[in-house]
Amino acid sequence: MPDTPVSRPDDAAPPSVCRWAVLIEYDGRGFVGWQRQPSETLLSIQGLLEGAANRLTAGRTVPSITAGRTDAGVHASGQVAHLDFPADVTLSSATVRDGLNFYMKPHPVVVLMARPVLPQWNARFSARMRSYRYRILNRAARPALDEGRVWHVKSPLDVEAMQQAARVLVGRHDFTSFRATACQARSPIRTLDQLEVRREGEAVIIETHARSFLHHQVRNMAGTLKLVGEGRWDVERVEQALAARDRRAAGPTAPPDGLCLTGVGYEDNPFIR
Amino acid sequence: MPDTPVSRPDDAAPPSVCRWAVLIEYDGRGFVGWQRQPSETLLSIQGLLEGAANRLTAGRTVPSITAGRTDAGVHASGQVAHLDFPADVTLSSATVRDGLNFYMKPHPVVVLMARPVLPQWNARFSARMRSYRYRILNRAARPALDEGRVWHVKSPLDVEAMQQAARVLVGRHDFTSFRATACQARSPIRTLDQLEVRREGEAVIIETHARSFLHHQVRNMAGTLKLVGEGRWDVERVEQALAARDRRAAGPTAPPDGLCLTGVGYEDNPFIR
Repeated sequence: MPDTPVSRPDDAAPPSVCRWAVLIEYDGRGFVGWQRQPSETLLSIQGLLEGAANRLTAGRTVPSITAGRTDAGVHASGQVAHLDFPADVTLSSATVRDGLNFYMKPHPVVVLMARPVLPQWNARFSARMRSYRYRILNRAARPALDEGRVWHVKSPLDVEAMQQAARVLVGRHDFTSFRATACQARSPIRTLDQLEVRREGEAVIIETHARSFLHHQVRNMAGTLKLVGEGRWDVERVEQALAARDRRAAGPTAPPDGLCLTGVGYEDNPFIR
Repeated sequence: MPDTPVSRPDDAAPPSVCRWAVLIEYDGRGFVGWQRQPSETLLSIQGLLEGAANRLTAGRTVPSITAGRTDAGVHASGQVAHLDFPADVTLSSATVRDGLNFYMKPHPVVVLMARPVLPQWNARFSARMRSYRYRILNRAARPALDEGRVWHVKSPLDVEAMQQAARVLVGRHDFTSFRATACQARSPIRTLDQLEVRREGEAVIIETHARSFLHHQVRNMAGTLKLVGEGRWDVERVEQALAARDRRAAGPTAPPDGLCLTGVGYEDNPFIR
């Protein structure tokens, strides 16, 4: 999830490749996360996607870059990546989509759309906005239909208090208290454009947008807002946590189950041309 | 799913038992359906629920009756059953709910609410309305997030045509063409109170209510409406299928994946007292 929003000269595709943007949906359970791991026994979304591209091109190497390197167990309904196919491989949009999906079977990862893009278009560095949704199932009974897809919180949550606390975090801040201690981003400063909490029946939904997020930032904010919803923390405590610039000052990291990357925004969006 | 909407003298609980109504949610994948099977190796919702009640009562037999005997792979967000506990076992509503959920772990079946009911209240025979939702995922890419929970139909569906055809089926009809040949209901006459088709993004949703349904009726209606949505059948063909009173005249049975029992209505609803 850490991402550097500044484009670099080597972001563009070399002339020998044909770059494709892909819109991806996945269920993150059973994966180590987006990023390919050195061990071939650990299943990553990236490894699965590049492996499918490799088979689609009869054994060629097809590297990928994603907009959001989601962690193990985190889901996506609107992830975006680009794939650099060899320039001599000519495929239609439908063939790229259906071919990748065929080779990724039976894993819960699918390409919803594939579009050829210009060499300078980069899934990660051209991204202007990331959107995440965090879902809490707020009821006594554990989830049956949504097991692995929600955070189960039994105690009744005060959504209005959570929304008040969320307002504290919106804007440009040093989010050191809300980023993983292992976060590799150069700066802890981020601008949170939206952080909204609403109830939908038994679910409490947290929606957030920002140009980019720090590692674990959404889950750390969700874990903190849950404490507010339970009445264990007040809004002032969240203000203090933010001001402390110390990971130990904020709430615990919420589990990955509830998190879903719902969309990535681009100035030049290849999927809505 | 076949159900006889007429109350019988032996529906009431004998005086030696304490009857509990339970509201249940489950993911039907991996189950042979609601109904307990003679073989103990086949997992049924009923077997799991009664087994949990048996453990909660330290080995007593706790029989159950359900409002809707769903088939293998069919889901429920609002199933209702009653359980006859021995009268000397006194438990609170929270203990019945949490105790059953504890013993049903880790299976995707949970009791959302448990309420004591009068002996003459019967989950099956007191039911006045059953509601089902059938979900079609209508896009090129197979489902990743909703695998096993939707019917994947690739060709674009004309929802307006489906809705027109649905109107043909609403009302009191002989549904012989839409019931499983193995259906054991005495009469093929049913009154369909609602059958509505709508689009929600990539999903096509069919909602239906009736006092009771015949075996496979919702799936057979969904399979027929899909042919209309694809433009392969017109509304007249659906009229003819209904009039034929012959299972072979209607469309194929849609897969169980898309079907969910969303609610059961009672004159005296124990869950909204």
